[in-house]
This record gives sequence, C-alpha cells and structure tokens, in this order.
Amino acid sequence: MSNFLPESKFFDKLLTQLLGESVLVLGHRRPDGDCVGSQVAFTRALLGLGIDARAVNQDSAPRILKKFIGNTPFLQPNEIEDSEALIITVDCADHARVGEELMNRFPSVLLNIDHHVSNTHYAKNNFVFADASATAEILAKFFLDLEYKLDRTTAEALYLGICTDTGQFCYSGTNASVFEVCRNLCQAGANPSKIAHELYEREKPGRIQLLQKFLASFRMEFEDRVCIGSLQEKFYLETATSPEDAEDFVDYARSLEGVEIGGLIEERNGKLKGSFRAKDKRYRVDLLAKEFSGGGHACAAGYNLDTTIENFYPCLVETIGRHLKTVDGKGF
Amino acid sequence: MSNFLPESKFFDKLLTQLLGESVLVLGHRRPDGDCVGSQVAFTRALLGLGIDARAVNQDSAPRILKKFIGNTPFLQPNEIEDSEALIITVDCADHARVGEELMNRFPSVLLNIDHHVSNTHYAKNNFVFADASATAEILAKFFLDLEYKLDRTTAEALYLGICTDTGQFCYSGTNASVFEVCRNLCQAGANPSKIAHELYEREKPGRIQLLQKFLASFRMEFEDRVCIGSLQEKFYLETATSPEDAEDFVDYARSLEGVEIGGLIEERNGKLKGSFRAKDKRYRVDLLAKEFSGGGHACAAGYNLDTTIENFYPCLVETIGRHLKTVDGKGF
Repeated sequence: MSNFLPESKFFDKLLTQLLGESVLVLGHRRPDGDCVGSQVAFTRALLGLGIDARAVNQDSAPRILKKFIGNTPFLQPNEIEDSEALIITVDCADHARVGEELMNRFPSVLLNIDHHVSNTHYAKNNFVFADASATAEILAKFFLDLEYKLDRTTAEALYLGICTDTGQFCYSGTNASVFEVCRNLCQAGANPSKIAHELYEREKPGRIQLLQKFLASFRMEFEDRVCIGSLQEKFYLETATSPEDAEDFVDYARSLEGVEIGGLIEERNGKLKGSFRAKDKRYRVDLLAKEFSGGGHACAAGYNLDTTIENFYPCLVETIGRHLKTVDGKGF
Repeated sequence: MSNFLPESKFFDKLLTQLLGESVLVLGHRRPDGDCVGSQVAFTRALLGLGIDARAVNQDSAPRILKKFIGNTPFLQPNEIEDSEALIITVDCADHARVGEELMNRFPSVLLNIDHHVSNTHYAKNNFVFADASATAEILAKFFLDLEYKLDRTTAEALYLGICTDTGQFCYSGTNASVFEVCRNLCQAGANPSKIAHELYEREKPGRIQLLQKFLASFRMEFEDRVCIGSLQEKFYLETATSPEDAEDFVDYARSLEGVEIGGLIEERNGKLKGSFRAKDKRYRVDLLAKEFSGGGHACAAGYNLDTTIENFYPCLVETIGRHLKTVDGKGF
C-alpha cells in the first residue's frame, strides 16, 4: 500500500459522504489533457465507489483527447438539468474557470482539487498541492493510497494528465514520486506508448503547415531572451486547422537557447489569446499574465484580450520588459 | 535491493575480473543520447569499482550531449594508444558500428551490452536484451541490482539514455519497469527537468529554420501511409546548421495521422543518409533499412548510400512499396 499523501484519509472520508448524492465533476473551459484526464478519472472513481457522478465541461474535449473519455459520462451543460447536485472541480485555479454558465448554475463548490499555485481556494474543501506536476498526479496519489480499484480507462486518464502537464516528463514537477505514480498506473493497465500514439502520432497535415507558419513568425526581443510567435486568424483558414491545433506551439518559442520566456499570441474570432512559457520558475509568467488579467503557473500562463496582434504587440513587449527588469534587472 | 535482471550476478562476476586491467568502453559512431549516456555511465561505474576505464568514440558527442559527460574520460581514437586494453561495447548492434578504425585496432570485444534486436552477438560475452527500451536501461538495472554507488553524473547519464531512446517515454519499451528505474535514478540525483532543459530547451534559431524547411519538404506516398521529408545539403548552409541538428526531425514525418512509416533522407558531403521510423513494430523498418545495407530497430532504423536525393527517391518509394506489401498486403 502506498502512502503518498497524508490527506488521503480525509479525502476518503469526504467521498464516503457523497454516497446517495448526485455529483458533477467540473473542469475548466477549453480542457487540456490534465483537465480531461482528471475529470474522467475522478468521475470513474466515484462511480466505482457507487456514487452517482458525471463529468461536465462547458467545452467538448479536443479531438485528440476524446478517446480517453471511454464510456465515462462526459457531458456539456445543455445535457444536464439544474439539480441539487454536489459540485467538484478539478484543475480549476478559480471558480470562473468552469465557464460563466456553469459557475452561475452551480455557485457552490464542495471540493476543489488543483495544482495551480494561483488557486483561490474557492470551495468548501480545497485540496491544492502547488508542487504536484498535475491535478491527475494528486488524484492518482489519493486513489493509490486508498487502494481504489483503477480500471484501465481510469489509469490511462490519470497517466494522460501527468504526461501532458509535465510536458512529457520535462517540467520541474517531474520527480521520483511522479515516476512511482506512473509505475503504478502502468501496472493498472496504462500503456505509455499507446497513449503517446494517441497524443503525438495523430497529427493533421494542416497542423504541420500551421506549425511552419508559426515558426516563421518568431520575433526575438530583449537580446534574444524572449521569443514571441504569432498566429493570425487567416492561418487557420489557410491550413484547415483550429486554435486547438496550436495548443503546444508556444513550447517551440521557449525552446530556443538563451530564451527565458516564450510567448504565443493568436487571433480568435477577432479577439486575442496569449500564452507564456518560462524556462525557470523565477520568471513567474503567472504574474506577467496577470498584467493582462490572466493567470496560471510560474512557468506556464495565459490571458485573453479584446485586441489585435498588431495593436497589442508593442504593449506586450513593453510589459515583458518591465517584468524582466523586476525579475533580473535586465529588461529595458 | 532491486532484482531487475537475473543476469546481474554474472555481470558482477565479469566486472570483478576486470580489476587491474585497462578497459575501453566503446560506443557507436555519431553517438546519440543512449550511446553517450551508456558510455559515460559504464565508464564511471567501472572507475567507481576501482577499474581503470575510459570511454572512446570515433566521433565527438553532439553539442547538446557534451554536458552529460562531466569529468568522465571520453576520448577520441587519436587520444589513446594501442594497448592490451579490454574492450566493452555499448549500444552497438554489430562490431562495425564502433567505426572502422576502432574495429581494426581492437578486433576482440570482451563484453557487448545492447538492446538492438539485430545485435550480432560479436563479443565473448553478450548481454543483449531486445525488449529493453535503451542500453542505459540495462546498465541501470545491473547497477541498481548490484547496489553500485551511482553518483549524480552517472544517474543523469543513465536517465539521458532512457529519456532519449524512449522518445521521451513514448516508444513501446516504456513500461512499469522503466518508470521504476527512473524513480531510482531520480533518487540517485538525476533531475528530469534539468536534463530536459539541456536536451530540448537549447534550440539554435537555425535549427528552427531548418525544421521549417524540412516540414515544407514532406511528400506523402501510398495513400498517406508514408511520409518522406528531405534535407538538401544547401539547407544546412542557409540555416548555419549541421546534420546533427536534424537528429530527431524524422519523428515529425511519422507523427502524421494515418502515417505508418516516416522517412528522412538527407544529403551530407555528397552522400545520402536515410532514416525510418515506424509507429508499429510490425512495420519492421530494420528490414527496410537492410534493403539499403542499413539496420536498427523494428521501429527506428537507418542507412547510408552513395547517391543523391533526386536519384534515390523513386527507388526509395519502390522499395517501401514492396515492403508494405509484405507487411500488410497494401503496398503497390
């Protein structure tokens, strides 16, 4: 029996109180691998305990992630009725991340499980572990500690969350304990190469063309310590792709030698969405994103604005410059 | 104490016989992460046992991998004298892989440790585990079973080998036991995010431009089941890069949905180097590479020819077609 988290017993106690209740497991809008994986795994674990549970997300899962849902009830808001359901959120740093509709319909959150350092502890019970590599890592540790039976789909959903939110075991949360969890998930039926195949070997040709255009857009700033790539709305039309296809492109901007902060700015329906990735935690891109009313992690954050790439770019560079100066005195 | 490999005791016995001898640990030409990692780790382990050992490679380690060598004696042939040294090879499927000069100077191999299915068992003692994800995995398992003291550089070299040869934990050899090894390596001081930073976050801008050109070169064959990308010699000049910068580009060709075999052909000094990657073992690209006097693994193989991209392309497609037909009857 594993003993990953001292909170496991309390977690178990909390779940036993859910017997006989109807539970909705919510995730954040535009769900990523950790969100879908955590929603799927938690919902299945609850069902396995005999608790009536369904996953609900404002947006449907991206094409690549749909296979990980299996036969889990994974619904959109119009498929559920308002009810006395108890609400659990996973991977949501604040309540608004579930989307306006779901937040308004379900204003009270019983349980909030997350690994974002910026989590606002908005629920009655908050399990926020900012040093976890993924929300799925937290869930896996609870489930393993409590010896819940994990079927293959649950194990794969948890592995999905860890694999994607560690950037394939690259980010700083990747440690001995993460590998120990993955060993257990493999033993429970998760197949890393099958999962990797689903995630990384099903590229659309258009995505490769979109990547070409993105790489060609790179602009270097602050003596090559910052690299910004941009995606114009027309690129999606030209390559028959959609914004979800560009999900991890920002990593290319960060990957250049000497670059401390990589950025992506993209136009979507006349609005602008931005992402930051830092190589080192001290660059705190969550604070940078906050300058534009966004948020996230120290090394990965995002924001949304009502502007265009052209209008925004000078402001973006100016703000990054000020931020760099506060971090290491070498901005402007 | 771990118990990964029943052969560990015999391995230990063999190494104790090396006390007082001079040992050279050879790897293959154009060394990759698994080769450099295995050479470094094995040399350090031998030194730790009080055995006089040096790593020797015909080619120097690529820029990105140099940091993993640390203070390990990692030499080129002109830095060693002919002697009565005992020879160990790592990650070499056949003796010729060490390069002509080293093969001629050291015709007798005492110990051959490798994970290539095509290994020819050319040494006096052959530890060939074709189901291992990396040669470094085999070494790590021996070292852990035998409780050899692993310093941080050794642990990181072993992790390097596993991380690169599993394609960041994506290929089919990635299983519970690999994660168990990685957990141990982290506990011995390997830092996954630091290693990932060295490997994936030190991109040269020219490499990004080279990638753009490579992506633009994609040609789809056999109803999009094969994707071939090519790199003309001039591309390297135009982007101030060298062939080692294109090391993993072939993965992009394989990554497309529906593609079973991805290929890369590149011109180097008027000659041609080719690589194949398959999504599934049954596509046996080692046999395909063998058609051009090359070799490798079922999912990753390569070859060298004295021709040009333009002259070779029709022959390449024809050969792949014949091969596909033998595999699944759907070539031509």
